[in-house]
Amino acid sequence: MPDKSLRISRASTSARRRPMMLGVAGDNAAGKTTLTAGLVEALGARRCLSFSADDYHRFDRAERRGMKLTPSHPDCNYIDIFEQHLQLLATGQPVLKPVYDHSIGELTRPERVEPRDFVIVHGLLPLHSRLARACFDVTVFVDPAEDLRRTWRMRRDTTTRGYSTDQLTAEMAAADTESTQFVQPQRAHADIVVRFASIAERDDPPDTPPSAELLLRPTIRHPDLTDVLQSEITPTIHLRLVRDDDGIPVDSVHIHGYTSAEENAAAEKLIWEALGDPRTAIPESLGVLGPGQHSTPLAITQMILFHHLTQGTH
Amino acid sequence: MPDKSLRISRASTSARRRPMMLGVAGDNAAGKTTLTAGLVEALGARRCLSFSADDYHRFDRAERRGMKLTPSHPDCNYIDIFEQHLQLLATGQPVLKPVYDHSIGELTRPERVEPRDFVIVHGLLPLHSRLARACFDVTVFVDPAEDLRRTWRMRRDTTTRGYSTDQLTAEMAAADTESTQFVQPQRAHADIVVRFASIAERDDPPDTPPSAELLLRPTIRHPDLTDVLQSEITPTIHLRLVRDDDGIPVDSVHIHGYTSAEENAAAEKLIWEALGDPRTAIPESLGVLGPGQHSTPLAITQMILFHHLTQGTH
Repeated sequence: MPDKSLRISRASTSARRRPMMLGVAGDNAAGKTTLTAGLVEALGARRCLSFSADDYHRFDRAERRGMKLTPSHPDCNYIDIFEQHLQLLATGQPVLKPVYDHSIGELTRPERVEPRDFVIVHGLLPLHSRLARACFDVTVFVDPAEDLRRTWRMRRDTTTRGYSTDQLTAEMAAADTESTQFVQPQRAHADIVVRFASIAERDDPPDTPPSAELLLRPTIRHPDLTDVLQSEITPTIHLRLVRDDDGIPVDSVHIHGYTSAEENAAAEKLIWEALGDPRTAIPESLGVLGPGQHSTPLAITQMILFHHLTQGTH
Repeated sequence: MPDKSLRISRASTSARRRPMMLGVAGDNAAGKTTLTAGLVEALGARRCLSFSADDYHRFDRAERRGMKLTPSHPDCNYIDIFEQHLQLLATGQPVLKPVYDHSIGELTRPERVEPRDFVIVHGLLPLHSRLARACFDVTVFVDPAEDLRRTWRMRRDTTTRGYSTDQLTAEMAAADTESTQFVQPQRAHADIVVRFASIAERDDPPDTPPSAELLLRPTIRHPDLTDVLQSEITPTIHLRLVRDDDGIPVDSVHIHGYTSAEENAAAEKLIWEALGDPRTAIPESLGVLGPGQHSTPLAITQMILFHHLTQGTH
């Protein structure tokens, strides 16, 4: 047969629309799902395809037990298939996506998904490989303070994922090394780093939402917030020019978790008018930590991502 | 982000080796697996990736029950994902292939497969779409006489696939219409049509292997068999120039099922020396119908395919 490539390309359908793609990496229970779920709802669920990179786990929970590998290790994931599926989605094509059921720790029947206007992928290792990173328009690393993350994880995995406390303590210990080796290094490749932290020095009541720091790296063009984030206008938020770990200049947006509800609402409104769609009210899903729990740092992080996804060009 | 396509192509690894690809279509129990299994063993299992297009079923057996669709309907299959996976394999890339477990009629966890020297795909609808067909170097339609096929199917599905006779009779009746509409039309797109048939007029004993007719269509370059297939040399086999249904000239190779073991062995040897690898003996797997059952028509069909896969250029 003379030229199969040509035959294939002739038989293929024509160009498709390309979605805007966001990759959100971070450790277990770093808050990735909370961050992306509110964003998806604000963008409109029907315009989004959102899934977990953890669906690309190679082994189920039972198989991993005999292995000394945790899901944070690239060898525990079909990295090459993940890259391939991202490329297909980035070029407007459907994929038959594997499904990892976190509630039972098993790989189940795959599902066909199509890219929509926005493709949002969160997980342990979505930014691990160069080819995967090349598929995203915006990349985020969620990096909560370690004490906060451990509390979040223990609460979640013993309630909704069927882990015993002992199993989980063992898996978390094993994951520490792999996190340092594979999950944390993705931070260096993120356009935005989100750090949630309780402020230990202050005497905040235990239910005070964590504060947040956003590093906006100059790897993509960020919205200009200098006008909005003047200290006399928004006492809740500070914008500072700092140097990143590697010496490169970045904008650091610090958002307090403890300020009053009125101050918070005013700050959110200002940012939404600057970044979101000023013709609409702030979507109610932004900043939702859980039933009845609101976090202004989370809301503002989501607004910045909303801006990138809806205003970005690609 | 200025040019994601460029970033993706830069991050991709370089060109890969392209496999030789064979597609074998035909109805349920037409003999596709028997044909391909012996061929795979002759080529060397480690050099082959062989799988069923039926893995791309969209629904499991329980879901289909409420539906009025049988697996022979394209809507019952992820045709677009199948096309996509064939394209990836054709360009040397791995895929995460869905898995349909025929023994229980369920879709299960997918498996990662890589193309090897030969990719052999058999199933109900592998040649249904233009794009799928463009991915194959050689295409075959297996077209046994209907009485033969029904006997084969009843025997197989009630023993190894857990169907009751009633269930199967119902599914076979429903599949008839869809077979006419979607499975049979693939015959027109095959480079080779294999027709097995019992010869009713003769008084062969019941265990006589079926005879076979192979149509070699001029859509690919077939080996020249005119020297070997002289009636004085091989009484078992006749080569005739005929017109296909659409009037196009084709070679018709007719292979008797009833001739003596000695005549058959001589014919196989001649064909193998002309088409296979004359330095080696005929692989034992060629012509195996089942334990202890040998069919010369099947062996010769497989030899012609062996020739195409190992000698073909692409």
